[in-house]
Amino acid sequence: MPENVGFIGLGVMGRPMAGHLVSRGHAVTVYNRSRGPVDALVDAGATAAAGIADLARRTTIVITMLPDTPDVEAVLGGPGGVVAAISPGSIVIDMSSISPVATRRLASMVAEKGAVMLDAPVSGGEIGAIGASLSIMVGGDAGAFARVKPLLECMGSPQRIVHVGIEPGSGQVCKVANQIAIGGALAGVSEAFALARKVGVDVTRVREALLGGFASSRVLEVHGERMIKGNYAPGFRARLYEKDLRLANELAAAHDVPIPSTRVVAQLVGALVDNGGAELDYSAVATVVFERAGLPPQG
Amino acid sequence: MPENVGFIGLGVMGRPMAGHLVSRGHAVTVYNRSRGPVDALVDAGATAAAGIADLARRTTIVITMLPDTPDVEAVLGGPGGVVAAISPGSIVIDMSSISPVATRRLASMVAEKGAVMLDAPVSGGEIGAIGASLSIMVGGDAGAFARVKPLLECMGSPQRIVHVGIEPGSGQVCKVANQIAIGGALAGVSEAFALARKVGVDVTRVREALLGGFASSRVLEVHGERMIKGNYAPGFRARLYEKDLRLANELAAAHDVPIPSTRVVAQLVGALVDNGGAELDYSAVATVVFERAGLPPQG
Repeated sequence: MPENVGFIGLGVMGRPMAGHLVSRGHAVTVYNRSRGPVDALVDAGATAAAGIADLARRTTIVITMLPDTPDVEAVLGGPGGVVAAISPGSIVIDMSSISPVATRRLASMVAEKGAVMLDAPVSGGEIGAIGASLSIMVGGDAGAFARVKPLLECMGSPQRIVHVGIEPGSGQVCKVANQIAIGGALAGVSEAFALARKVGVDVTRVREALLGGFASSRVLEVHGERMIKGNYAPGFRARLYEKDLRLANELAAAHDVPIPSTRVVAQLVGALVDNGGAELDYSAVATVVFERAGLPPQG
Repeated sequence: MPENVGFIGLGVMGRPMAGHLVSRGHAVTVYNRSRGPVDALVDAGATAAAGIADLARRTTIVITMLPDTPDVEAVLGGPGGVVAAISPGSIVIDMSSISPVATRRLASMVAEKGAVMLDAPVSGGEIGAIGASLSIMVGGDAGAFARVKPLLECMGSPQRIVHVGIEPGSGQVCKVANQIAIGGALAGVSEAFALARKVGVDVTRVREALLGGFASSRVLEVHGERMIKGNYAPGFRARLYEKDLRLANELAAAHDVPIPSTRVVAQLVGALVDNGGAELDYSAVATVVFERAGLPPQG
């Protein structure tokens, strides 16, 4: 069954993601606050919607890819938003990384309209969006997941699209878990490198040795190399990682889960952002650890 | 040039490591405080030394594999120890995980005898020792490293034997960095799983999703599975990891390197050991995180 797909939010991530849907032959209607990315997608074959409600009325599947929780709340639940305009049987897929609690609330609003909301946050950053190799963590109804899977496969690696659970918000919880796990690894590698550097041991050799054993990780491999080269061009921006860690701390607080290691990571990322690093890759958190050890940012 | 190899310390790690040297045809003289492992290796073709000084006099390369810094200090530098008895031109390889500061001191004592000391701590645990697949991180003289490399290759994977630096203690510093990096990853995965479990999301799915992206690590792969199954049979015992983290904190303090993330990990491991988990695999640190979140140890 051909679906009319709506796509709201054509930023760094959303623009290439919507582009993949268009290039794979789907009928895509797009909306974005600024006009530039809309024109580019229309040139590629998409249709421009007059507004959010117009987009929701024209389509049976609405995808949102927005910066933060309030943006998604406004676009979905606000006046003139998606929920007020969608038809029964439609599916809303929120691919933004937002609060799992807000997601559950929005999913209820969508359900009251006889439609289904899936949360489907992604991992892999701009490179993954451009390369259609994103990891996608999906929460919500299994039937809806099966129906939209071909669309998700236009944007992510098929083997990396995981239906995490049928409860609304499961995907967002998984994304939070993802950012927590990355944070621990990142702090560990940063402190390991800081200590080795301060003692005077070559971190290039240290990284090589560590990659052969239990300390091996994607963070050591990719971000470890960034730390050695001092290459902190994003990538995934520190200010967005700060937001994700805020979501982690909020969720942990709401469920009485102490996460002391993540609190350390959040503190380091906060220091990076406060010191002018908001637009750097989040792996630049190592520079905070290095600086506190009395080391220059690179080496 | 055939070498007469001495091996001191036939514990869980040393016994299979010495066994590999014997089975690969080297002339190996062994010493251990308790007699059982000595007899087993003699049956396999090794020679038993009458004591430490006797072993040092008979051999040109002396390997030590002992639990902690004081053990190595006693065996090498104590009365009737290795240093007092070795010949010029000999090489001492300490494969224990001990203090880099003590290692530098011991290396100086060995050098005063016209011999060379290499520090060559390993990663990979009992499984790596039995399978001859250890990672080996070597510090010290490059010529000595080249001379002993064939011996190290009997115990570790050739591509995982890294000469980290010519300064004595470089290998130990690398080992400390290894344990720090692992600790961060371990705390991150533990907190990620604790939060997902408490919210009610299936951690088996979470692990699967995370393995596809940037959170991917050996810790998530191997220890993540242990956490899900509640399988904490060692592996690498928590009390030894606690020791390694003590070395990390000592080294960091000596060099004025703040390592707040590692301090959190050390605190968690301390709680595990204090609560009867000293002999469990160190990944059981997750049970401390789970318990503090009000969760049962497994699931």
